[in-house]
Amino acid sequence: MILLKQLLLLSFVLPFAYAEPPLIVQINQPQLDKVDAEAHCTSWRVAVEANNLSPWKTVPEECRDYVREYMSGRGYLHDLQRVADETVSYARSVELNGDGKLAWVFDVDETLLSNLPYYTQHGYGSEIFDGGKFDEWVEMGMAPAIESSLKVYEEVLNLGFKVILLTGRSERYRGVTVENLFQSGFRDWGMLILRSSEDHGKTAMMYKSEKRIEVEQEGYEIVGNSGDQWSDLLGSSMSKRSFKLPNPMYYIP
Amino acid sequence: MILLKQLLLLSFVLPFAYAEPPLIVQINQPQLDKVDAEAHCTSWRVAVEANNLSPWKTVPEECRDYVREYMSGRGYLHDLQRVADETVSYARSVELNGDGKLAWVFDVDETLLSNLPYYTQHGYGSEIFDGGKFDEWVEMGMAPAIESSLKVYEEVLNLGFKVILLTGRSERYRGVTVENLFQSGFRDWGMLILRSSEDHGKTAMMYKSEKRIEVEQEGYEIVGNSGDQWSDLLGSSMSKRSFKLPNPMYYIP
Repeated sequence: MILLKQLLLLSFVLPFAYAEPPLIVQINQPQLDKVDAEAHCTSWRVAVEANNLSPWKTVPEECRDYVREYMSGRGYLHDLQRVADETVSYARSVELNGDGKLAWVFDVDETLLSNLPYYTQHGYGSEIFDGGKFDEWVEMGMAPAIESSLKVYEEVLNLGFKVILLTGRSERYRGVTVENLFQSGFRDWGMLILRSSEDHGKTAMMYKSEKRIEVEQEGYEIVGNSGDQWSDLLGSSMSKRSFKLPNPMYYIP
Repeated sequence: MILLKQLLLLSFVLPFAYAEPPLIVQINQPQLDKVDAEAHCTSWRVAVEANNLSPWKTVPEECRDYVREYMSGRGYLHDLQRVADETVSYARSVELNGDGKLAWVFDVDETLLSNLPYYTQHGYGSEIFDGGKFDEWVEMGMAPAIESSLKVYEEVLNLGFKVILLTGRSERYRGVTVENLFQSGFRDWGMLILRSSEDHGKTAMMYKSEKRIEVEQEGYEIVGNSGDQWSDLLGSSMSKRSFKLPNPMYYIP
């Protein structure tokens, strides 16, 4: 009986297929294009996360929709959660001897605090970065915590690591940054290092490397480092292990 | 007329939907599962490529099909081509002064030569690595070139870089490795460094770091490094820029 129904259905549908081929094409084409764009832009995103790309200024035009969907959908949250799980698992495996000299470095933007409310209004990285507008957003001190990172932060803190916040934000935003971090649930860090006047003009990698060297000179051993940019993680005095949080919206050298 | 046909089609299809709901569920469920598995395993693969995972021994069970499809389909080739394009673009941007002291390091397995014929027969990384069987494959000297890497290799060579092959293969495979590389089109390298007896027992990262230090002590500056493992790229005397070729099949610490 089902077979008969299916044959009847087929005999009914087939004439459509042959009579109006453009209609069939119109139905299938966007799906095919979407699959291709998805594969192409996933490849681009993997290259971002593996640090294979030359410095880039905006999300490639053909990947704008892809990045918007990734950032506003489950993809970003899924990837954040995976990094968080790996981080906690590693942090717990480190033997702490109680001397308080094992340090964990966290970047701030897109690592502890999320600027997604800003980027949602600015094309998710598809617009050229506007420093003035972004600074206005920073000054509001409204960036929410990345939930999975807040849990990592609390775990790292409770395990007994010295928590060091190392951000590319300028020293003049110390007040608002402290307040924003507090209001988003981040407490009890050991140091908060911001860019002072002599650090301006340095690449993030250079500035952060220098600061890690200073941290080591103070007697700390950096065993973990979490950041959304490779310039948070590479350079001198690199951490024993690094955790690269996802970020397909912007690139900082 | 089209509207009428569509209404007729709808009136014909609807009774199926309501009469046999389990059939509908059977049709939709596998697709949904596949989308979920795809998202989950893409997230895993991104974590591999971003070096976020703890050492792992096999591809996670739920991602076996995903990795097989990726490696045997367009995904792997697409990602290889992207890395190749980025590599050539960077290599061309380097100013060579003709003194022959700028070096480029290439790993061999899954960077220049492909062991995909072997892994195709061994579950694409879903089986525990069998050193004995893999050595038999290496001794055959049948690994084909990764096409996109051969083009990168030739470009890097022609630009005037000193090409250094640095592989985790044992010194006793020098003969077969040279022959395999030749037969796959790789020529004119400056050095081919294999693991000597005193290097056994060292991690790949330690061994390769030591060898890069020696290369620098001989007066070379390493400006490019291509490898499919992060242990090819991280450690001491790191290259100015590194290129991580995709490899979701195995992990070497």
